[in-house]
Amino acid sequence: MSPDEIDAFLARTKVDPDGLVPAIAQQWDSREVLMMAWMTVETLRETLATGRAVYFSRSRGERWVKGETSGHVQSVREARLDCDGDTVLLLVDQVDGACHTGDRTCFDAFGGRVEAEG
Amino acid sequence: MSPDEIDAFLARTKVDPDGLVPAIAQQWDSREVLMMAWMTVETLRETLATGRAVYFSRSRGERWVKGETSGHVQSVREARLDCDGDTVLLLVDQVDGACHTGDRTCFDAFGGRVEAEG
Repeated sequence: MSPDEIDAFLARTKVDPDGLVPAIAQQWDSREVLMMAWMTVETLRETLATGRAVYFSRSRGERWVKGETSGHVQSVREARLDCDGDTVLLLVDQVDGACHTGDRTCFDAFGGRVEAEG
Repeated sequence: MSPDEIDAFLARTKVDPDGLVPAIAQQWDSREVLMMAWMTVETLRETLATGRAVYFSRSRGERWVKGETSGHVQSVREARLDCDGDTVLLLVDQVDGACHTGDRTCFDAFGGRVEAEG
């Protein structure tokens, strides 16, 4: 994105009362949903400008470059906003596992099939 | 899911201070990310028990059955929790468009390609 496109993207982004917006990371080719984490306007700007996913840790209260210590970085290929402007979807290329557990996605751990009623 | 499996799923689910958990809906076969919305424990339980996605509208402060008025229902095939238990991923079968704009997904509207730096 050009600087003007980044400004337009950020102008449409609506953060919550804590100044955060949820960002869903999806592997661009397999289309696995890898994780969901939070961004500030500043880390979203950095993500769009550098092509490297940068989040904001609510528990630690600080900026967090995905993969900075693990090497499991996310290269961002495309960024989209939803119709309300309050959720970001990132199409990324994930190196190794996205999850701190070592799993490929953060949704590998627990779940099951839902059988509809009746 | 059986009633016991639903209880186990809900026991692992962590809601935010407002009693809400974000739920990502993904089309099960094409793997499109359709939308992100919020659930209470009660609407999540109803979703898992009935196989029909039921959310909670933060703006209206009320339970909201996806597609109740539009007919664009989401049949839930599988539900997963992330590693922290604070985000739900639903694999759904979406009738027509997921978005109130008529678009197939809520992420059709605005976005662009991210060119990495350097």
